[in-house]
Amino acid sequence: MHTAFKTIGLLGRHQQADLAEVLEQLLQLLAPLAVDVLVENDLAEIFHDDRAEMTTRESIGARADLVIVIGGDGSLLSAARTLAKYETPVIGVNRGRLGFLTDITPDDMSEQIPAVLAGQYESESRFLLDADVLRNGKRIASGDALNDVVVNSGTSARMIEYELYINDAFVYRQRADGLIVSTPTGSTAYSLSGGGPIMHPALDAIVLVPMFPHALSSRPIVVDGNSDIRVDILDRNHLHPPVTCDGHITMIAAPGDSVHIRKKPDRMTLLHPVGHSFYASCRDKLRWSNALVN
Amino acid sequence: MHTAFKTIGLLGRHQQADLAEVLEQLLQLLAPLAVDVLVENDLAEIFHDDRAEMTTRESIGARADLVIVIGGDGSLLSAARTLAKYETPVIGVNRGRLGFLTDITPDDMSEQIPAVLAGQYESESRFLLDADVLRNGKRIASGDALNDVVVNSGTSARMIEYELYINDAFVYRQRADGLIVSTPTGSTAYSLSGGGPIMHPALDAIVLVPMFPHALSSRPIVVDGNSDIRVDILDRNHLHPPVTCDGHITMIAAPGDSVHIRKKPDRMTLLHPVGHSFYASCRDKLRWSNALVN
Amino acid sequence: MHTAFKTIGLLGRHQQADLAEVLEQLLQLLAPLAVDVLVENDLAEIFHDDRAEMTTRESIGARADLVIVIGGDGSLLSAARTLAKYETPVIGVNRGRLGFLTDITPDDMSEQIPAVLAGQYESESRFLLDADVLRNGKRIASGDALNDVVVNSGTSARMIEYELYINDAFVYRQRADGLIVSTPTGSTAYSLSGGGPIMHPALDAIVLVPMFPHALSSRPIVVDGNSDIRVDILDRNHLHPPVTCDGHITMIAAPGDSVHIRKKPDRMTLLHPVGHSFYASCRDKLRWSNALVN
Amino acid sequence: MHTAFKTIGLLGRHQQADLAEVLEQLLQLLAPLAVDVLVENDLAEIFHDDRAEMTTRESIGARADLVIVIGGDGSLLSAARTLAKYETPVIGVNRGRLGFLTDITPDDMSEQIPAVLAGQYESESRFLLDADVLRNGKRIASGDALNDVVVNSGTSARMIEYELYINDAFVYRQRADGLIVSTPTGSTAYSLSGGGPIMHPALDAIVLVPMFPHALSSRPIVVDGNSDIRVDILDRNHLHPPVTCDGHITMIAAPGDSVHIRKKPDRMTLLHPVGHSFYASCRDKLRWSNALVN
Repeated sequence: MHTAFKTIGLLGRHQQADLAEVLEQLLQLLAPLAVDVLVENDLAEIFHDDRAEMTTRESIGARADLVIVIGGDGSLLSAARTLAKYETPVIGVNRGRLGFLTDITPDDMSEQIPAVLAGQYESESRFLLDADVLRNGKRIASGDALNDVVVNSGTSARMIEYELYINDAFVYRQRADGLIVSTPTGSTAYSLSGGGPIMHPALDAIVLVPMFPHALSSRPIVVDGNSDIRVDILDRNHLHPPVTCDGHITMIAAPGDSVHIRKKPDRMTLLHPVGHSFYASCRDKLRWSNALVN
Repeated sequence: MHTAFKTIGLLGRHQQADLAEVLEQLLQLLAPLAVDVLVENDLAEIFHDDRAEMTTRESIGARADLVIVIGGDGSLLSAARTLAKYETPVIGVNRGRLGFLTDITPDDMSEQIPAVLAGQYESESRFLLDADVLRNGKRIASGDALNDVVVNSGTSARMIEYELYINDAFVYRQRADGLIVSTPTGSTAYSLSGGGPIMHPALDAIVLVPMFPHALSSRPIVVDGNSDIRVDILDRNHLHPPVTCDGHITMIAAPGDSVHIRKKPDRMTLLHPVGHSFYASCRDKLRWSNALVN
Repeated sequence: MHTAFKTIGLLGRHQQADLAEVLEQLLQLLAPLAVDVLVENDLAEIFHDDRAEMTTRESIGARADLVIVIGGDGSLLSAARTLAKYETPVIGVNRGRLGFLTDITPDDMSEQIPAVLAGQYESESRFLLDADVLRNGKRIASGDALNDVVVNSGTSARMIEYELYINDAFVYRQRADGLIVSTPTGSTAYSLSGGGPIMHPALDAIVLVPMFPHALSSRPIVVDGNSDIRVDILDRNHLHPPVTCDGHITMIAAPGDSVHIRKKPDRMTLLHPVGHSFYASCRDKLRWSNALVN
Repeated sequence: MHTAFKTIGLLGRHQQADLAEVLEQLLQLLAPLAVDVLVENDLAEIFHDDRAEMTTRESIGARADLVIVIGGDGSLLSAARTLAKYETPVIGVNRGRLGFLTDITPDDMSEQIPAVLAGQYESESRFLLDADVLRNGKRIASGDALNDVVVNSGTSARMIEYELYINDAFVYRQRADGLIVSTPTGSTAYSLSGGGPIMHPALDAIVLVPMFPHALSSRPIVVDGNSDIRVDILDRNHLHPPVTCDGHITMIAAPGDSVHIRKKPDRMTLLHPVGHSFYASCRDKLRWSNALVN
């Protein structure tokens, strides 16, 4: 058997229960192929195998031709933020229920991973967001996200006041718990819980979803993916709004700061087994499939 | 004074109270310019003036370099469906409150119309939708819409059952009062009342909004503007679903029919006075502006 | 075996596939008990048995001590509207998935029906709505509903304009596709698809849910169950709004008419097997149960 | 002039810009009446007048026959929590826009306050909520609220997992940012931003609104006002959920704790000028009034 991927990286979260076992299965699947295998050295505690080289996540990004992430959508989000700058293709193996990003189960792995390595896969490109906090015009912090950047009050049931600008055009001044800025990838995650629309992954668009807005007529807004989004935290706020990237508090803004959000130049390449369907994932994850029963 | 628009068409709805008066004002504004003026012959009942030629809406589309529509967003929607194929630029004069499409008031007309004619305007391109009803693979009816195509049960509080396909990929089988398929232009109209997002007019996207879906997890879906959308009316339906284009019942489908919806090849060119802002229209029409008072 | 119910009525829809079979099973279950069995004479086509008397639905209401409805929630809604005035207790046997109102399956019937007849049941009281159309102060039509009364434009995607009064206090003037007025029983049906809240069946309240309201700040309103609700159809409407009761077009109003809606004096007594839980029905029907998986 | 209210208490927030001025106007209005005036001693910094006795808020609650709160809805919420146990009637004077609770403006004060004191007022009773955090069955903290009790993750965009029980019946296990438990009074505040219904103030009901629920089919639930609500914070949570009462973090729960919420035995008596209308407040505050313009 032959593969175009010469170096394969394996990533995972060492807290995951059966990670060592899944890694072992993967090594056996990869053994017949003349590939180099790199495993994230965070996993050294639970995994050691002579057939694999332990190295950093950054080094894997730089050297691997394909990265297999073991875990849920959260693990893949984390990997994506590191790997985007190396343009390394990524595929996800999910222990539990399928995710929107990870669509190979350990049970299907022995069939699907070799198929992918043999070139039978579908590839799609997902964009990420860059977020900067600016204070007096200077960038004081930055982060990136595959799903969403959320500017919020830091405390549920507290409001922040901000002004929203898109491509320097004033949109509104708003009082809300916060604002979710989501990619199509993130549109099936937190944004959806907040009333945002589902956006097809190939759509070049960003959605802005206000969280518990004080004005009832405030609605999600979908704008072009190349839009420059600016959230000005009004001086009159008494709190320091955290800015989360994919659910992690990455930065803390202050009254008077601006948060700039725009498409990242680097994109993630996500691989799927042949026959993958975004809508099938929706039907499964959002329980659409049986809508006509009764 | 000089203008690049040599032939100007004037459209309106003859039911409109002060239409004759507004037409008269427009003729006076146009008089100093060496332009030909065409007025829709539906208005012959209420308007006659030697300075203008009365002719059909189609002929105006074919001959005019610019069409001024007097009336609300509804009048402009209707004009757009005729004019798109001629690519005639359109601008709207609105008697009452500003609309999303019509942003010159009669009061501002004497200032803004000459400015537009002198080349001081902003131009944007809006896409329309084509909708066909197919029976046994043959097109039996068709329509077009600038705002939205709605496939529905024809009766509030009755459900239809349909399958949705996007680019031939199965999305879901659904039981609902109907489905709204909306352009960005229509996203601030009926789609918005049904929980759809606001989409910036320049976005190349279509939103699908289920109406009173039986499955609570069914949400608006935003897809690329070039998507091919197909709604298969299941055989098991006992009703004949009307298909509305911009709110008018244009076609009646039957159980077993398919409704195909996709972007129209022709686009509408919409002119605005300089300084126009989509978000300002939102603030005004959706009452966002005062959100921070109290 | 002994039962407090001396006369048992059986209702169903003759279109239902296996109705004769379920009726036969019920007769066998009832045979050992010294009860009179009445079967709706609409079913004479598909059912005849010497052990049962065929008679009208009204007569069953007047004479039976318990009515067993075979069918889904729709069949029970229909039965409830007839039986409420006789205060006859009702229990539902549902062929397919459990409903919110019908919670005995044919499989469980042989165990649960005898238990109910032996006095092992939970009883709850559900209120219905009376709706009248008034023209020039005179009632021209009336209907009743266990789930909801819907005043609507008659055509999806068309708006009506109306004024809402509650206990003669002006609430708002609104432009919308219509207004759903729902009991707690109906709150898990059409009202829920329109964004209304779930109301516990024991709550003495009515919810008013605007359908596709033009004003984005219009929201569902919950009022006391004894409220007098009046929907004044404005003269300026050009359409004749149908008024549906439990999904059936019962009356057609005209511009200038008023629709009055208030609690019916008669209530339905609904029986359940012991251990019934409204929230368990919600978990099952609304698919809450697995929310924490993944 | 004569009044049934012999002792009048005056409350306010000393940060409020023109508080001293409004207090002065009130004293002049009260001067002609043979009443004792008590002013909250927190205001000593900005106010001193021989005609008034400075004392604690608690003492005002115990002694006053009527309390006038100067400030917005927030000031009145705070006062209500103190005054409920003394059953002292309260009326609100609002500097800015009218609130849902405070409906006298300083401009109308000179007319409306004497009218109220002369017995021309409408009185309504509003219930409050008691909230306790229980650890191993023991109450470790408690709070009360006129608007709402919110159990949440403490951080926007983080989820907590909990089980909801109503009158000891299991409702669901849910993963969400939190849960809003709101009175009718609170239904026009935070609960409304989260998609909850408007509930008429006289309704004896509580609404439970999930915040950004992971399950899309999770909806607001309205239950009887006498329901016993229990939120069990699952052991598997890694965060300590704050419990807010009327927007203030009052208690911090831990994984394994239960939050109990039920109606407070004491109620607030709220006075309004004659002619007050809840729906008029809605029209004003929620901008319903002009819905038919355009």
